[in-house]
Amino acid sequence: MSLLTVGSVAFDAIETPFGKTDKIIGGAGTYIAFSSSYFVPTQNIVSVVGNDFPQEMLDKLKGRGVNLEGLQIKQGEKTFFWSGRYHNDMNSRDTLVTELNVLEHFDPIIPASYQGADYVLLGNLSPQVQKTVIERLDTRPKLVAMDTMNFWMDIAMDALKETLKLVDVLIINDEEARQLSGEYSLVKAAKKIREMGPTYLIIKKGEHGALLFHGEQVFFAPALPLEEVFDPTGAGDTFAGGFMGYIASTDDYSFENMKRAIITGSAMASFCVEEFGTNKLENLTKSEIEERIQSFVRLTDFDMVQTVG
Amino acid sequence: MSLLTVGSVAFDAIETPFGKTDKIIGGAGTYIAFSSSYFVPTQNIVSVVGNDFPQEMLDKLKGRGVNLEGLQIKQGEKTFFWSGRYHNDMNSRDTLVTELNVLEHFDPIIPASYQGADYVLLGNLSPQVQKTVIERLDTRPKLVAMDTMNFWMDIAMDALKETLKLVDVLIINDEEARQLSGEYSLVKAAKKIREMGPTYLIIKKGEHGALLFHGEQVFFAPALPLEEVFDPTGAGDTFAGGFMGYIASTDDYSFENMKRAIITGSAMASFCVEEFGTNKLENLTKSEIEERIQSFVRLTDFDMVQTVG
Repeated sequence: MSLLTVGSVAFDAIETPFGKTDKIIGGAGTYIAFSSSYFVPTQNIVSVVGNDFPQEMLDKLKGRGVNLEGLQIKQGEKTFFWSGRYHNDMNSRDTLVTELNVLEHFDPIIPASYQGADYVLLGNLSPQVQKTVIERLDTRPKLVAMDTMNFWMDIAMDALKETLKLVDVLIINDEEARQLSGEYSLVKAAKKIREMGPTYLIIKKGEHGALLFHGEQVFFAPALPLEEVFDPTGAGDTFAGGFMGYIASTDDYSFENMKRAIITGSAMASFCVEEFGTNKLENLTKSEIEERIQSFVRLTDFDMVQTVG
Repeated sequence: MSLLTVGSVAFDAIETPFGKTDKIIGGAGTYIAFSSSYFVPTQNIVSVVGNDFPQEMLDKLKGRGVNLEGLQIKQGEKTFFWSGRYHNDMNSRDTLVTELNVLEHFDPIIPASYQGADYVLLGNLSPQVQKTVIERLDTRPKLVAMDTMNFWMDIAMDALKETLKLVDVLIINDEEARQLSGEYSLVKAAKKIREMGPTYLIIKKGEHGALLFHGEQVFFAPALPLEEVFDPTGAGDTFAGGFMGYIASTDDYSFENMKRAIITGSAMASFCVEEFGTNKLENLTKSEIEERIQSFVRLTDFDMVQTVG
């Protein structure tokens, strides 16, 4: 089934306790595209870069089945740039530089060939841009998922809430869920957020896994315990890409299948953090992914034959 | 199979964002005894109280099949008292008062009738006392599990490491695992700690669940997402009691059965935090426990029919 993904294609510069990069390729849209590409043979991406963006990376994306017709290349403009430094715990980071560049006036144009998308994943972007994408679709997709972040809650909460009304699945982290809802308890936060629009809510807890809420149902997926997290950048986007790629490839958004999609997204995220940037995500094999997913099965599998004696 | 539990039987005074108690009954040994009592028909406890300890609570423990022959009642002395205040996140707390009283010179005497224990759970106490208990057993139990805390790592690390050599299962939280090993990564911490003696390591992560490490195997059990955590006091002891009660009642300490024991311990801990002190743990029914364990099954159950498309 057809998958439309929207998100930034960008430059990042990253410092972690393990090292430092020069400008490398990043952006939510890039991580999403690579991650979902292992599940859907083709996908349509909507994004924007400047003419400083390397053709080599565009070729890599094309090579993974990513249709770039909706990727605008702005002549004489510069690609979005973000730079950040991770703290020792790798769970928190400081933003050092944000240069919006082409994102400042990004108008998400949907090519005619993209219309009729069954599944849509809106990566982290301004809520106005996300809303515009949904409004420009001629037909209502089967499922619209979106990511957002605390930054938009700080400066554009009203617009964010308007966008949320149009979305089926919201994917955010625990701190963002708390900020959006004003509730500390994630169970209470999940209730309030689902009253805002999304009937499905995924709360990512980084190294502590992820929760899926829908109706009275809850599913918990762990993160794989790793010896080292080398670079967490893009892990959330990679999770979302794996999740939505799995849903689109199976054309099944039942709660049972969403569980599998979350395990799949978690497996993809566990690859992402092993190297800087998108390195690890560019050349995975199916058997590597299968094996990683089986690690999640082994990690959580138990058979409760007898309970109270 | 016979279960020997060792731990403080004490008074607590607790402040949480939800309220405040006067002196109530607490202590690791108390929580362990109540929790494991739902799985083993009898258990032998080794502990000490002053003669200020209420007979009513001793009767309650007896009523739950707890043999008190090894509970010393020190005439003219006072019971151990701890008072603490939880922060708003309920994950951290300040100790307000610690009065060791009878624990200061606690000599853990093992009644002759307790000898031959198959399973031994050493609740949090000084590592010297824990070691003395093991040394006073005439026969090596099938499995010895112990809990400890950062306090002993601060003041008695050498003694703690001596005790660890004698233990099969260590049950500690994530911060304690990091302090004990000097490693931030829990996977690395688990390796180092298992080189100290215990072949099984359980790392409790509070609301984020628990990990079991053994050889090359890892198992992850989630915590149940709760609307409110009313009082976390004793949750770790309750977990350990449920874990070891389940192991003893099934007389099976295979890795597969330890997984079930961890789910059981997690279920018991989820009851503990719903009310102040041991209230909730004193009168559970088997069907309540069964139902709670099934909530864990539902929370983590998935069936990975198809992975990479």
